[in-house]
Amino acid sequence: MAFSPAPVLEDLVADPLPRLTKQTHDESGLRRELAVIRDSGVATQRDERARRAALALCCRGVRELPQAIGLLVECLDEPGVLYRITEAIFRHGANITYVAGGARREAIADLQLEISGAADDTRLIADIGAVQGVTRVTVVPTFQTIYGKRVIVIGGGAQVGMVAQGAISEADRHNIRGERISVDTIPLVGEEQLAGAVRAVSRLHRARVLVLAGALMGGEITQAVREIREAGILVLCTSMAGSVPEAADVVVSDPVEAGVMAVMLIAETAKFSTELVRGKRY
Amino acid sequence: MAFSPAPVLEDLVADPLPRLTKQTHDESGLRRELAVIRDSGVATQRDERARRAALALCCRGVRELPQAIGLLVECLDEPGVLYRITEAIFRHGANITYVAGGARREAIADLQLEISGAADDTRLIADIGAVQGVTRVTVVPTFQTIYGKRVIVIGGGAQVGMVAQGAISEADRHNIRGERISVDTIPLVGEEQLAGAVRAVSRLHRARVLVLAGALMGGEITQAVREIREAGILVLCTSMAGSVPEAADVVVSDPVEAGVMAVMLIAETAKFSTELVRGKRY
Repeated sequence: MAFSPAPVLEDLVADPLPRLTKQTHDESGLRRELAVIRDSGVATQRDERARRAALALCCRGVRELPQAIGLLVECLDEPGVLYRITEAIFRHGANITYVAGGARREAIADLQLEISGAADDTRLIADIGAVQGVTRVTVVPTFQTIYGKRVIVIGGGAQVGMVAQGAISEADRHNIRGERISVDTIPLVGEEQLAGAVRAVSRLHRARVLVLAGALMGGEITQAVREIREAGILVLCTSMAGSVPEAADVVVSDPVEAGVMAVMLIAETAKFSTELVRGKRY
Repeated sequence: MAFSPAPVLEDLVADPLPRLTKQTHDESGLRRELAVIRDSGVATQRDERARRAALALCCRGVRELPQAIGLLVECLDEPGVLYRITEAIFRHGANITYVAGGARREAIADLQLEISGAADDTRLIADIGAVQGVTRVTVVPTFQTIYGKRVIVIGGGAQVGMVAQGAISEADRHNIRGERISVDTIPLVGEEQLAGAVRAVSRLHRARVLVLAGALMGGEITQAVREIREAGILVLCTSMAGSVPEAADVVVSDPVEAGVMAVMLIAETAKFSTELVRGKRY
């Protein structure tokens, strides 16, 4: 797909800017981001990242753009409804980025849908509302807007608690400045269980960075770390026995600091680069 | 991979039983589950699900049944693919319980799908694999199996960190006994931001209980608490100024204990009932 960054940048700057905030950020990082976008030529990826990079570059402030719209669709709890909804969305040339079933009561189910790329959101909403089996459509904020990027913390209870402490305190400082970062954790025991949880991080909606916190991790867990790094997840770990520290991007001895650093690495309100720390031990 | 269910069942029953609890459950569902496992021949999934199904069958104890199957679908990143996938699923009379876009690289996107109610999962998987635009289908564990139920903690950084501490320690104790509980947090400031995050909890996949931790919450946040309680989410809060404590199910002064109690209230490995504490202050 042909793609030139300059017009996109200009078009986007002409857009209304509903989420202007006052952060500064790293211009060279954003320019790198635009270069990646230009080279990748993938529509969804391009739009999302181009818009973010362009706006950030020009306004030095907009971080999370509501490119996707969130819809809460109340419908009959039966097979075929989602199929008909996706048909309506397909006719609009739009992409579904997230769907999950929510509450169910009697014969009614709630669906949380996130959709991007529709030319006319109002008509799309009307068309979804007209689908057989759909009883109500409400526009709601997307999870990206509400909960933002996710730091995932997995490992032993003692250390996970300390990493969470650091990450939550640091996320607080960035969220106050307009970021949206959440810290999601699970304490687990056992190589197989841990490896499964690590692998699933690359499939988790909005997950950006994993912190492995424990006293001993290796074997299958190390393999899982390599796989999710390939898939683009940044992996930090505490200093520990086993081979996981060799496979991680960064090793941080103090669990509170590991949590803080994980947040700094994904916060656009922070001046901190992965390249600065990759392969290091602190 | 050749696979016969009977020996696995027997082998697993002879195993230590890490997931023994006391609930009853549906035997026919478990037998279907075993049939799926036998047919799918996917090692990790098979082992984990066979273990759970077999244990449940024999011990009448596992409540969170993995009726849904998880699929990682690698496909072209373009509108229409999900539509065609849902069509295939619809033809099998099955329900999609979760879909989210995952990693994207070049023109390929990953979709995480969770599907329940198909009569023949093996044929369903084959049919999804045959959909135009789908390049690979892998059976993966569902998020329910991996990360389980979610405790959500929202509020001020200081208190959210302490609630998380308590909840993570307590989740650790239950996860060791076969539960799967994760603790997901976001520190936020501002009535509007908090109310939005509270409202979104009722739409969050696998969310069961919310802990609001802060020094002052009221107004729109209190209204949001009432709404999500209606939608079936249990709400705890720390003792604080504002009207939120009046609207919550339970008020717990110590944030660490609030986290512990939230986990106890949803753990099936705990002996603790919501009815015992509703409307009380601790």
